[in-house]
Amino acid sequence: MSAPLYIALLHYPVYNRNGEVVVTSVANFDIHDVARCARTYGVKAYYIINPVESQRYLAQRIMAHWQSGPGAEYNKSRKEAFSIVRFADSLEDTCGAIEAVEGKAPELMITDAKKWSDNTSYQEARELLSDEEQPYLLLFGTGWGLTKEIIERADYKLSPILGQDEYNHLSVRSALAIILDRLIGVDR
Amino acid sequence: MSAPLYIALLHYPVYNRNGEVVVTSVANFDIHDVARCARTYGVKAYYIINPVESQRYLAQRIMAHWQSGPGAEYNKSRKEAFSIVRFADSLEDTCGAIEAVEGKAPELMITDAKKWSDNTSYQEARELLSDEEQPYLLLFGTGWGLTKEIIERADYKLSPILGQDEYNHLSVRSALAIILDRLIGVDR
Repeated sequence: MSAPLYIALLHYPVYNRNGEVVVTSVANFDIHDVARCARTYGVKAYYIINPVESQRYLAQRIMAHWQSGPGAEYNKSRKEAFSIVRFADSLEDTCGAIEAVEGKAPELMITDAKKWSDNTSYQEARELLSDEEQPYLLLFGTGWGLTKEIIERADYKLSPILGQDEYNHLSVRSALAIILDRLIGVDR
Repeated sequence: MSAPLYIALLHYPVYNRNGEVVVTSVANFDIHDVARCARTYGVKAYYIINPVESQRYLAQRIMAHWQSGPGAEYNKSRKEAFSIVRFADSLEDTCGAIEAVEGKAPELMITDAKKWSDNTSYQEARELLSDEEQPYLLLFGTGWGLTKEIIERADYKLSPILGQDEYNHLSVRSALAIILDRLIGVDR
């Protein structure tokens, strides 16, 4: 990989289990596990997108414990992982912030538990990421997943992660780890 | 994969940050994320190994909410994921339980954040797992990792998961997801 790769976890708009569009809450492990994984794979920044100010504040308070509070001394690798975490109100703001840094709007790559006729394979996506001129934003949904509108406007839809049979109910944290490894990892 | 594959998360004996051998606590997300991932990849059973009875009891109470309590109706896929979770006092008991089911002791495959001179690559491990006669136990440590004694007695030590540079501080949940995908996953 040489492309500037960004990831984001979207809390709105996403579906709930009844197919209604909702805002989800930030989960503590979504901050920790995803930041550590993103830092390991050389992701430039990890955006937590949530339009609710108190939710962003809560996440920032948790992070402050590890960045400048007692946790900073206790676990230096956690502090380093959190250095790439950013907060945003919306997907639009996230894309704008990336464009401001990179001088070019990111192409949007999404993942979904469902198959789409125009899915991009991981091998194709790895080739895309070899272009160092093009920033990419890899977007993950919370709750019951990204809305149809967001999926349809994405530049690339990665194939779903399938296991041994029809059961594929990975947590977003597991799916994200697997996808980063498929896109960037090397068996050394 | 056709080999009967089992996974286990060890809470004792493992190191703490000072290199002392300790018992760690069961984390809620270790139950959920790992069970969902194991079920997705066709793992036969997921053992949570902890010698402290109250810890096993706590984990069983959390699971009961999703298996027979209000969660069972709310989220059926969680109930299904939990159907492969087992509890054990020790690594020895886990190996014994697998041998009782399979008629053959499992070979022990471990993973560690450090490189060893006799590491097994993921490609080699995939080939091992094509032998349907041989059960395998893939063992993960909590805390600051498996003790040297356990690592040295393992039949196979998988290569560490490395990212873009020296930083590799994945959570055990992320490492486990990535390793199952490397061993079993297919880009379809």
